[in-house]
Amino acid sequence: MAITYRDAGVDIQAGDSLVERIKPLAAATRIPEVVADVGGFAGLCALPTGIEDPLLVSGTDGVGTKLKLAFATGRHSTVGQDLVAMCVNDVVTCGARPLFFLDYFACGRLDVAVAETVVSGIADGCKLAGCALLGGETAELPGMYPEGEYDLAGFAVGVVGRRDVLGPARVKVGDAVLGLASSGLHSNGYSLARRVLENRLRLPLDAHVEALGTTLADALLTPTRIYARSVASLVNALGGQLHALCHITGGGVVGNLPRILPAGVQARIRMPELPALQRLIAEAGPIESGELLRTFNAGVGLVVVVDADAMHAAQVNLEHSRETVFRLGTIAEKGPNEPPVQLI
Amino acid sequence: MAITYRDAGVDIQAGDSLVERIKPLAAATRIPEVVADVGGFAGLCALPTGIEDPLLVSGTDGVGTKLKLAFATGRHSTVGQDLVAMCVNDVVTCGARPLFFLDYFACGRLDVAVAETVVSGIADGCKLAGCALLGGETAELPGMYPEGEYDLAGFAVGVVGRRDVLGPARVKVGDAVLGLASSGLHSNGYSLARRVLENRLRLPLDAHVEALGTTLADALLTPTRIYARSVASLVNALGGQLHALCHITGGGVVGNLPRILPAGVQARIRMPELPALQRLIAEAGPIESGELLRTFNAGVGLVVVVDADAMHAAQVNLEHSRETVFRLGTIAEKGPNEPPVQLI
Repeated sequence: MAITYRDAGVDIQAGDSLVERIKPLAAATRIPEVVADVGGFAGLCALPTGIEDPLLVSGTDGVGTKLKLAFATGRHSTVGQDLVAMCVNDVVTCGARPLFFLDYFACGRLDVAVAETVVSGIADGCKLAGCALLGGETAELPGMYPEGEYDLAGFAVGVVGRRDVLGPARVKVGDAVLGLASSGLHSNGYSLARRVLENRLRLPLDAHVEALGTTLADALLTPTRIYARSVASLVNALGGQLHALCHITGGGVVGNLPRILPAGVQARIRMPELPALQRLIAEAGPIESGELLRTFNAGVGLVVVVDADAMHAAQVNLEHSRETVFRLGTIAEKGPNEPPVQLI
Repeated sequence: MAITYRDAGVDIQAGDSLVERIKPLAAATRIPEVVADVGGFAGLCALPTGIEDPLLVSGTDGVGTKLKLAFATGRHSTVGQDLVAMCVNDVVTCGARPLFFLDYFACGRLDVAVAETVVSGIADGCKLAGCALLGGETAELPGMYPEGEYDLAGFAVGVVGRRDVLGPARVKVGDAVLGLASSGLHSNGYSLARRVLENRLRLPLDAHVEALGTTLADALLTPTRIYARSVASLVNALGGQLHALCHITGGGVVGNLPRILPAGVQARIRMPELPALQRLIAEAGPIESGELLRTFNAGVGLVVVVDADAMHAAQVNLEHSRETVFRLGTIAEKGPNEPPVQLI
């Protein structure tokens, strides 16, 4: 008897039906620059007008093993925001405005309802970031992923004027260092978090934890905060007095802050009190403080370096954008044997 | 005893060492527009000068279960070209020039040597496409992928002047339809191909197959052809007489050709003789001819629609770019009950 692609585990009709369900989700994220989105061979998008010497800024990331919590709880609505956040928070560190986003969704057997829920979360994330969901790929790969599991990758493109690019070249001794609160673990350190919670604390995901004020699942699945709109407002308000932004992602504050520091300076910072979930994990591990700061965000999702004169204005602007702002410290000269990040 | 991120299966040092190995690979793909590539939070790239009203064109794709052949044979050097090809061949269908590429590599345990080989293939693909490898993400996700396996996703961005966008709006009755030979299965239909070869033919991957003139592994792993440079040359040579390009990807010629046809027309085409590998699979399946044309590329990787007057010039230009060109047929009026693709 003749064999078909479907016999081999690939259901093109399911894929087509998903594309039809995604179209309105993508359409709801359209920005005026979009020329053509989901459904063609490629997405088309114009550049915003009024940006002198525009540079394209792009980043890619995934959600990591935070996805395992979506599989375990059957809650697939928030990992899409995580995906957008991880990419867009990288792109905005240059001072760029996010323009569009594409996603890659891969699974062993396509469950159209689950995939639609995930993509719906991606579209929600795009709205929070102010960028368009311009395209994506749904891959049904028999035998590559266990039943009920999937992986996600995302890709964001933004735009910034060449003269407005933020980064190390602008950072100088005396600058103020602010931190914006994270919304939770964001999307880093989940392999370690799950290991500690499952093997040491032996807490089920639906356990209500007093210290968290909610269930473990709720605390762990809290979506990654998207800083794009707050950053856009800050860029407008501060102009050249905004020097650098640092997304606290894999590697933590110790691994990421050096990426925005020029040679010869160090960030002298005091981290805020550890959030309840991260404290719970750190104590149960136990996880040593250095390891914790290399693995988790320790409560700070984005670091902002501004001219000392602009610190107050920056804080007011960010709080107006509903960010929780910590005054972490300052940029100082670095002695020959001192580390780039000095915790005080 | 204190627990570390490494205990939980994530080796940040291995990741950092991979980034160092990738930097020179990415640097070798640089184009003049690149401002900053691999290593920062995001990649930065300027637009080429001289393009009036530029539109960004972006696409994402993966390699699918062709990766299983890389796992089975331990040959990881060519799937990177497949990844770039699948994305870039989508982007060029608009007439766009590929500008940059980002990759996502996910695995359960990071094998730095394997990952470096894969990324080296991606860099090779970028060189063939003339675009820069601008960034990427390597995700070590304990428990998400079996030992020795990984998944790949890619993202390509190109640029085209708004007035030069190819597509259905330009296609008209009387146009000539040319096909460019594929280099093999490209990166579609592998779940069905493997099913037939393993379960029906029961051929080991290292079997030398007379009809193929090589081993099954070699034939199956042949990298996807990248049409970017041939398309760029054709765009230059034909200008407005080039009407549309169609990447024959998942869904085959029957599923993809309608995407470049305006209402009321059909493509009347005769496909070339089936390449040896696809004939072998079709006969062993057996796979019915309609199913075959919806699953595999049937020997044609890219379809080119040109003004009838330009057919000869197009063929000469493409053959000069070392493409094998088939005269597939023409664009004709479509009767009310006729299909968009009529095989003659």
